[in-house]
Amino acid sequence: MYRDPVQSLQPAQHNSIATTMAMPAATRPLRVGMIGIGTVGAGTFRVLARNQATIAGRAGRGIEVVVVAARNLARAAGVVGTGVALTNDPMQVATHPEVDVVVEAAGGTGPAREWLLAAMAAGKHVVTANKALLAVHGNELFAAARQHGVALAYEGAVAVSIPIIKALREGLTANRIEWVAGIINGTTNFILSKMRDEGLGFAEALAQAQALGYAEADPAFDIEGVDAAHKITLLAANAFGMPVRFADAQVEGITALQGLDVACAEQLGYRIKLLGVARKRPDGVELRVQPALVPATHLLAHVNGSMNGILVKGDAAGVTMYYGAGAGSEQTASAVIADLVDVARLDGTNAAQRVPHLGFHAHAVDEHLAVLPRAAVHTRHYLRVPVHAPQDIEAVGAWLAAQQVPMAQLALAADKALPPGSGAQVLVLTDAVAQATVDLAVHALASHRAVAGPVASLRVEMLEA
Amino acid sequence: MYRDPVQSLQPAQHNSIATTMAMPAATRPLRVGMIGIGTVGAGTFRVLARNQATIAGRAGRGIEVVVVAARNLARAAGVVGTGVALTNDPMQVATHPEVDVVVEAAGGTGPAREWLLAAMAAGKHVVTANKALLAVHGNELFAAARQHGVALAYEGAVAVSIPIIKALREGLTANRIEWVAGIINGTTNFILSKMRDEGLGFAEALAQAQALGYAEADPAFDIEGVDAAHKITLLAANAFGMPVRFADAQVEGITALQGLDVACAEQLGYRIKLLGVARKRPDGVELRVQPALVPATHLLAHVNGSMNGILVKGDAAGVTMYYGAGAGSEQTASAVIADLVDVARLDGTNAAQRVPHLGFHAHAVDEHLAVLPRAAVHTRHYLRVPVHAPQDIEAVGAWLAAQQVPMAQLALAADKALPPGSGAQVLVLTDAVAQATVDLAVHALASHRAVAGPVASLRVEMLEA
Repeated sequence: MYRDPVQSLQPAQHNSIATTMAMPAATRPLRVGMIGIGTVGAGTFRVLARNQATIAGRAGRGIEVVVVAARNLARAAGVVGTGVALTNDPMQVATHPEVDVVVEAAGGTGPAREWLLAAMAAGKHVVTANKALLAVHGNELFAAARQHGVALAYEGAVAVSIPIIKALREGLTANRIEWVAGIINGTTNFILSKMRDEGLGFAEALAQAQALGYAEADPAFDIEGVDAAHKITLLAANAFGMPVRFADAQVEGITALQGLDVACAEQLGYRIKLLGVARKRPDGVELRVQPALVPATHLLAHVNGSMNGILVKGDAAGVTMYYGAGAGSEQTASAVIADLVDVARLDGTNAAQRVPHLGFHAHAVDEHLAVLPRAAVHTRHYLRVPVHAPQDIEAVGAWLAAQQVPMAQLALAADKALPPGSGAQVLVLTDAVAQATVDLAVHALASHRAVAGPVASLRVEMLEA
Repeated sequence: MYRDPVQSLQPAQHNSIATTMAMPAATRPLRVGMIGIGTVGAGTFRVLARNQATIAGRAGRGIEVVVVAARNLARAAGVVGTGVALTNDPMQVATHPEVDVVVEAAGGTGPAREWLLAAMAAGKHVVTANKALLAVHGNELFAAARQHGVALAYEGAVAVSIPIIKALREGLTANRIEWVAGIINGTTNFILSKMRDEGLGFAEALAQAQALGYAEADPAFDIEGVDAAHKITLLAANAFGMPVRFADAQVEGITALQGLDVACAEQLGYRIKLLGVARKRPDGVELRVQPALVPATHLLAHVNGSMNGILVKGDAAGVTMYYGAGAGSEQTASAVIADLVDVARLDGTNAAQRVPHLGFHAHAVDEHLAVLPRAAVHTRHYLRVPVHAPQDIEAVGAWLAAQQVPMAQLALAADKALPPGSGAQVLVLTDAVAQATVDLAVHALASHRAVAGPVASLRVEMLEA
């Protein structure tokens, strides 16, 4: 039920619908209902209006927002003007008889799930950039979309400006995907870039990110790696033909990262990035987010500030990389509207048949593909061992060798890397080794007589490019 | 007419077709005819076979090669085995009654044009990676595809491993594209990387590229910039909604590039890359290929060896970048098969309606969008002026200022950048200036008393990232 009958009966709108109702489905405008008109919703509305002619020229038909649900109708009217019906009730949009496709731009997981289920049950296509929703409720939602033969499109859920879902789901279909890895959270990449460029600690860099609008007042989802884990979960499903397995992902953020390690990594020729990694192994799938060292010469090391960069390794294509803004109003709108254009181009085709929601048709999805436990993940590692004196490097090296930790490099942190009073630090780069072995060694090192403080341990990712 | 009746009647094949004929169109295998089974064709066949289950799981149906045209049937049989009909006659494949889609993997322009026209007239979809064909005959071929309602897909024509056509045509549809620029020829990028890394001259680097298989015996199309011009022409059409305008592109290769300029650019903080650039201006479109300086800190400067990297600037998405291998058998197969999967997913939809071949529907293509002449292109420029003595730098600077050339930097080449006996070199970086102004200044400088040899002039591209 509309709360604003005057706007909902706005004449221009109704004329336009009356005209278009008589046109064949393929040429009349696609009618959009939006739930939420905040940053993403307003950006979508603005870009749709500004690039109307270009978008229609590409889509073959117009795309028109006919109804918007918002909490604050006065503010919403300020964004969408008088040509669009407004309501306080998202369910009105979800089931609106004049709507072909519902854009969910409200966020959150509980109510959003119900809106999308209702919209799909009513035969509407749905578009969302809500990665939390899809990571948590994706299996249920995608099953509903399949059942109702509608699109559930979500390009904006991962690395908004970059059409990475399309690349995986349609562009790289020839390939068995071996791994996907990348920088998929702009907030933490901004913080890590600040820590490196300006020698800041984590707390200072976070405060700057918040002051500049790159981090939210409650930054927990970003800095604890949860947002990146939502995204790598969706990428893994599309890459490997597996269900959405967010609950099994290993998630580590950057809150415990020290500026000292950023500096020591630099000395060794590496940079620290928060990486999402999904890798197919013979015995399962790695699905994980953690701060990791990447070589300073690697392309990922040059993805700075709030930008995102994603690498995909396919058996035929080799490594391809995708780079762009990971957040922003119009950047997200770019993805949401691309999804709308895809829907506009469906032309009556069963959406789930054309491109399966997670890249693979249901019969080809491996329901039993296991996520490997943390202890089983093999990578190279970086260790920083505080010691009492520089000559303790020998004892540390000998002890790690005895613990079967394969060492590629053993060095002392240079003075210039160290804040005053840090004491001597032994730096270790290992060869590939199971996390379990590293965990044991780090635990045991803590009680070694040469060791003067907590040992830092980070993965080193040697990705092809 | 088949030249090998035994193979064309191979039982397994015919059983399989008989079985599938009774199935509905959406679930029976997509039947492919291939023209050419060289590097691209064999790679496509190999990847289709190896990743059969994965590809069918994504496409929703199998993809089967049923007939192949080749010059050497014995060699072709060695590639495709006994399950595929063989013929010497490409037209047999183009019009074969059991073929849904024709893959043109033979190359060349004249006969390939006729095969594709015949295939489309017979209602077949067509897939090709033949950029020369599309750059030269594209307007005719795309019109035919529209007329017959079939797909003419060409992801493999540009930066093979990277789904850049899909990104432009489907991923960035919300955007008005402002420019596309990138490294889109692997051979020349390999040569330029060698010149920089090993201080080689062009001829030596080319010889190494040929010895390692990165350059063909006749490398003219690559090193003269023609191949890159074919590709930027196709990208421009998809970006801006214009016809294919290869004849109007400005094309400059790297054959005249000196190692001295690679070294001097390095001294100034730049690297030289062969760039394809398409940029929308108020008065037309820039469409051009030339060696240009890019800042050493820019992502494009880190696209090395034979890799490709393409930047796209959209008004909503901002800058996105796409990186990957630009050549190779299976890398090209990755693109060709992605096109086949798109066709397999069409499910009876009119292909031209779903995604227009050049990104825009015919009514939205601007037939009159003019390509700007070379003289009108504004960029920054690099000049290297050989002089008799270092103090001549003052005369050169004063003279350029008098010629209205806006200067951002004036320097002497450091000795270490110069091969023995080079003499003093004045290096100039200008602000943005019309090519016409630079051309006049370079021409006039040749007769200046301080100038000791030919002046080198290159564009400097300051691209966002």
